[in-house]
This record gives sequence, C-alpha cells and structure tokens, in this order.
Amino acid sequence: MFARQLPGGRRYGVVAGTGRVLEALESFRFGEEELAFLHDNQIVDAPTIEFLAGYRFSGDLYGYREGECYFPGSPILTVAGTFAEAVLLETVILSILNHDCAIATAASRMVHAAGSRPLVEMGSRRTHEMAAVAAARAAYLGGFSSTSNLMAGHRYGVPTAGTAAHAFTLLHDSEKQAFQAQIDSLGTGTTLLVDTYDVAEAVRTGVELAGPDLGSVRLDSGDLAEVAHAVRGQLDSLGAEKTRILVTSDLDEYTIAALSSAPVDAYGVGTSLVTGSGVPTAALVYKLVVREDAEGVMQPVAKRSVGKPSRGGRKEAFRQLDPTGTAVAELVTVSGDRPADARPLQAELVRGGEVVGGEELEAARHRHRQAVAELPATAHQLSRGYAAIPTVFD
Amino acid sequence: MFARQLPGGRRYGVVAGTGRVLEALESFRFGEEELAFLHDNQIVDAPTIEFLAGYRFSGDLYGYREGECYFPGSPILTVAGTFAEAVLLETVILSILNHDCAIATAASRMVHAAGSRPLVEMGSRRTHEMAAVAAARAAYLGGFSSTSNLMAGHRYGVPTAGTAAHAFTLLHDSEKQAFQAQIDSLGTGTTLLVDTYDVAEAVRTGVELAGPDLGSVRLDSGDLAEVAHAVRGQLDSLGAEKTRILVTSDLDEYTIAALSSAPVDAYGVGTSLVTGSGVPTAALVYKLVVREDAEGVMQPVAKRSVGKPSRGGRKEAFRQLDPTGTAVAELVTVSGDRPADARPLQAELVRGGEVVGGEELEAARHRHRQAVAELPATAHQLSRGYAAIPTVFD
Repeated sequence: MFARQLPGGRRYGVVAGTGRVLEALESFRFGEEELAFLHDNQIVDAPTIEFLAGYRFSGDLYGYREGECYFPGSPILTVAGTFAEAVLLETVILSILNHDCAIATAASRMVHAAGSRPLVEMGSRRTHEMAAVAAARAAYLGGFSSTSNLMAGHRYGVPTAGTAAHAFTLLHDSEKQAFQAQIDSLGTGTTLLVDTYDVAEAVRTGVELAGPDLGSVRLDSGDLAEVAHAVRGQLDSLGAEKTRILVTSDLDEYTIAALSSAPVDAYGVGTSLVTGSGVPTAALVYKLVVREDAEGVMQPVAKRSVGKPSRGGRKEAFRQLDPTGTAVAELVTVSGDRPADARPLQAELVRGGEVVGGEELEAARHRHRQAVAELPATAHQLSRGYAAIPTVFD
Repeated sequence: MFARQLPGGRRYGVVAGTGRVLEALESFRFGEEELAFLHDNQIVDAPTIEFLAGYRFSGDLYGYREGECYFPGSPILTVAGTFAEAVLLETVILSILNHDCAIATAASRMVHAAGSRPLVEMGSRRTHEMAAVAAARAAYLGGFSSTSNLMAGHRYGVPTAGTAAHAFTLLHDSEKQAFQAQIDSLGTGTTLLVDTYDVAEAVRTGVELAGPDLGSVRLDSGDLAEVAHAVRGQLDSLGAEKTRILVTSDLDEYTIAALSSAPVDAYGVGTSLVTGSGVPTAALVYKLVVREDAEGVMQPVAKRSVGKPSRGGRKEAFRQLDPTGTAVAELVTVSGDRPADARPLQAELVRGGEVVGGEELEAARHRHRQAVAELPATAHQLSRGYAAIPTVFD
C-alpha cells in the first residue's frame, strides 16, 4: 500500500490508522448474517461461503509505524499471504488508512501553524459519526492536545475537553444566569462562550462572576484577531491577566497561521480537521506487486495502465539523513541491501496472523513529533508544492 | 437544523440520513462502560451519570423526508423536547446528516450529468470504513443504481455490483488465463477489466473467450473518451455489439458530463462520490430557536454573533410552485399560516420518543427523483452559483 502522489500539494504525509487496522484484523470475520446475505443473494458460490465462514487472516503485515511521515511511493504497508486472504483485506485497510492518514496529515500542518499553542479537536458533528471518533484519534496522533469526542477518550485514551454552546446561554433568562450556572457547576476555571450577544458585555459579566481566576473565554465569530486583541485588553484591564482566550470558527492551518501574532492561547478546530482541510482522502492504493509462480519462485508483477505508473517487487524503505540528522531522501528498494546513513522505516506488525506490532497511541504521537522534526524546513510550507524530500527508487 | 448556505456553490441540497437518525435514536443509550468512563474521568457529576443511565429521548422530531431537496434556511429537522434530552442528540444528528446530505447531493449532481446511464458507487476504500456504508446508502438515495459495498446491500438493501481488479489479472500467468477463470466462475455476462496490459489485446482476448455475449468491459485509465471510442469500434467489429463499456478512474460530475457523447454505457464512481465531490460536509447546524419561559410561554431565541445570522422561532416550510409545477421559492414561516400553491415539506418523524416516520430507502429514492424534477433547469448547472430557488422568510 502506497500513495502515487501526495494530494493537495502536501509536502509530507502522516501514517495513521495502522493501530486501527490491527484492531480490525482481529475481528475481521464473516458472521452468519453476512454469510446468509451473500448466499441468499447469490453473490458468491457455496465453496466461497465455506471459505469465508472459516476466514481468518494467517499472513504477515509489515509496514511504517503510526506517526511516521511518508512520501510518494513509500511502502506504508506490505501484506503477505495467499491471494484470497490478502485481497479480502484490501477495502478495510484502504478505508482506514485513507481516512486516518488524511486527517493526521491535516492535523500535523495545523499543529505546526499553531506553534506552541494547543489545539482542541471539535469536528465530530461535521463528519460521519464513526469517522468522527477515528478523526479525533488521528488528530491527537498528529499533535492535537485534546478532543471534544468523548468516545475517542473512552476508546483510545485521547484527552477530552469541551466548552459551552450558544444554546446553553440562549436557554437561560440572561447571559449572566447562564454563566453563573456554568461556574456553579464547573468552577471558575471553566471556559465561557462570550459571543452570543455582545462580547465586551459578556467578558465583563464573566469576570464579575468568576473573578480573575476565570479559566478561559471562547470567541466563535467575527474577525478573530481584532476581537482577540480587544478581549485581551479588556481582560487585562479587569485584572484577569491569566484568563486564556480560545478561538474557534471554521479555522484551518491558514487562519491559524494568520492568528500567530494575535493574543490567542488555544485553537478549537472542527470542519477543516475532520475533512482533511481540502484533502479528505489520502489517495493510498493497494496493489499486487509480487506473486509466486508455478515453480514456487516469487515474481514481481505490475500493471501497465496509462498514466498510473506501477513498480513490481517487494519494497524496503529507508529515510536517508544528512550528517545533521535532516532527512534528504526516501529510499525505496527491491534489492534487499540496506543503505548507509539511513533509518529503516518498516516494522513487523502481524506474523502468521498474530498481531505483534501493537502499541499505545501515545507512542505514535511521540514518534510523529520526532519524524516531523527530522524533515527539512520546506516540509512546513503551507502552500501547495512538491514532497519535502524526493523518493529514490532502485 | 438547517444550512446557512449551500457550500461549494451548490444549487440545491439533498436531504439524506434521516432514516439513519431514526435508527440511531432507537439505540441511543448510555451503557455501563460509557458511564464508567464518564465517572472515572470526572467528566460529569453523579446526578448527570444517573440522568444518562436512564436516558431515552422522549420528545418529537419533525422534518423534511429523505430525498427531498433543501435550500439555505430550510428547517430540515426540528427537535422538540427538554433541553437536556435534545442537546444530547446534537452531535449524532449533525454527524449523520452533514455526512449523508453531502454525499447524496454530490450523487444527485452526478446522476443528472450521467443522463440515462447508470452509476455504480465504488468508493468504499476512499473513506472511513463505516462512512463507506452510509455513503453507499446516500448515493443510492441520490439516484445511483448500485454499490460495490456489500454491507450496504446487506443493511439497507442497496443493489450490489462489482467488477474484477487488476490484481486478479496480475495473479495469473496470463491475462487470458485470468479472463478464462473469471468467465468460468461468473459466466460470459461478467465485466472484464481490460486495461492491465494492452487494451486492444485484452478486448480481443475477452471476446475470443466469452464470445459476443460478453457482458461488459471496464476501462480504468487513459483518456476515457478516446479509449471508449476505440473499444466500441473494436467490440462492434468483433460482433460484440451488445457488450457494454463501463468506465471508472477518478470520475466526478464534470468528467461524467464530459463523457456524455462518448460510447459509454455506465460509470463507476469512487473518490469524488464518497468525499462529496469537493464538499465533504453539508454545513448543517443545530440551533436553539425556541425555549419555554418561566411563565410556560414558548419564546423565540437567537444569538447575535457577527456574520452568522440566526432567526428565532419554530419554522414551517413550504415549496412554492408555479402553475406548471416548477418550484419558485422555499417559504419558511414562523406564522403558522399555510401559503397557497405551496407543498408542505415537513412530516412527523418521532412522537413522544417513538419513531412514526420510518420508511423504506426505495421510497426516499423515489421522492428524490420527484423533488429534483420539480426544480427549475438552473438547478442542474454544474458551475458554482446561487441556490436554484430563493428562500423567503416571513
């Protein structure tokens, strides 16, 4: 599995979803209901039903670890097994990685644009209900600090965070009553949403009720830079110098970068994160590259379709580094030789059907920080362009 | 729930996902594991845990039926209930409808571009694994003929279809052996993928093996119009005049329209369908518009955030038609009056927590055909622009 190119002129891709693939693999079975559907609708024949009833992947998976960066042609995942066993995994593996890599890549760009300021993932409502959970996981892997998706907290241990909604303020007889109810319930360290009616009045009310220990205020509309400056000044003049400003409202990596000089303490990102900020799918493909011939010899194979270059053979991959430790090339080889000054990129994930490469999400998040730090500065250009390092095939 | 605007300059939106909302509502409960997570992480307090443990939506849902078209401000779904009960549904309802409406809207555009030619949904691998199932459902609702997603067939009764993969050809010693194996298994009515090596040779081999009854050939690369003309000529000269040509390869509504004069019999669409063809989310929002005051009187409410116009009050909606039956305006009213020459757009979906508006997917698909036929011709312009009819508020 690899990407022919990085869609949207991305400079690098982020591997994400491998952990979910390993989870999915362990429960990838055909139940009675599914088999009955396939039988009753004559979709497959009796021997195939029998094969599916006993299906269990018994082959090997080998690939890039989550959090690693990838480039065009990087062999992110290699599946070795019988054709029938391996081809059945094609859709589920591509679905998971195409989605999760796209989100993690967008997240990584936003994290860089935000510098040292934390990012909260808040996009669940703008994507499919289960994609939302995977998106929160991928965002955290890519460097986001927390998510408003509680299922991602439950399932994957992603730290959770939230703020109040406009509806909560509108529900009360006055904004003051709403703020008081929120502070009574959650303490003065809470985040008040201050743009339901009049921002300056809401900030005044918030500090009046919570005192200078008010945790944060959230701005969700207007020219955020201008409003943030005004609110910062107002908070400081009220003695709430430690009260933080969280901004939301259709942010993406570009608007986050544009706010870098504004007095903003944290960003909440929704739509653009869960939709991959213009690149909702990673364009990964799953191709047959080696088959065993009648003599039992492994033979490289490749199609010759126009405009879709394919390379046969099982790939090994290394990241070549210069003496300062900066990445200079992605080396993809079928020779079996290990190049010098190069970091091997693949690891054993599944052996004989058993998962051997599971790890905590936190490890993947940490790996991403290291992998992205290794890239040349050009990797962080937000404009469309070429991959930050070339892929060299041998 | 409504859209402030139609993103991507769409001329109309398609309501999809309501059926999935009704399904989700029936199983929207908090289990022991979820409650333990919320408790152990001190996310909510003990009285809230208790409330959640007994949670069951007991209010009403009222809204547009699936397949109906919508415009900016159309009150697609109205949720009436206690604040606590209704606010808990916000994320799941928005997730489902933001996703499904975006996909169905893209599907509807493609269906119009394809004219009388059928469209097969083949995008599962380019989106989250569960979003894929919902996307296949939404595509069928929007007018696609079938899907390659078997779970959508199983779960929602969407007709299923498929073709062979390049890997199947590459697996064999020769293309001829691969075709023979496929024909032996699936009969001469099957669809052969003919662009793995050389298209002309593959077509010759296919007709040689299957005879003039060969069902279809699939083209997945190259200049599809040019290749389709060449293949049509070759098939006809070989006597395979009834063999159909299916084209795939990153199609969207624009490339489908561009192929309208090419000898193509059916289209397979993947990436662009499941990602909403540039609009992966429908921008629907869920806003508090009416609350009961201390005197028990229902009062309209609305926030006053800059640049995000909101209108308080419970909305009723009607589609105004001219004497020829063509839609001329979307009427959205809080007055309770029913305008003349106008079709009411809302129906009761849930009453006192019980689903009363369930229906077959086929009914929604049929409704969409009727709803889209009612729109003025400008609705079918593929270019970015304004909504096909204005929304008139009173």
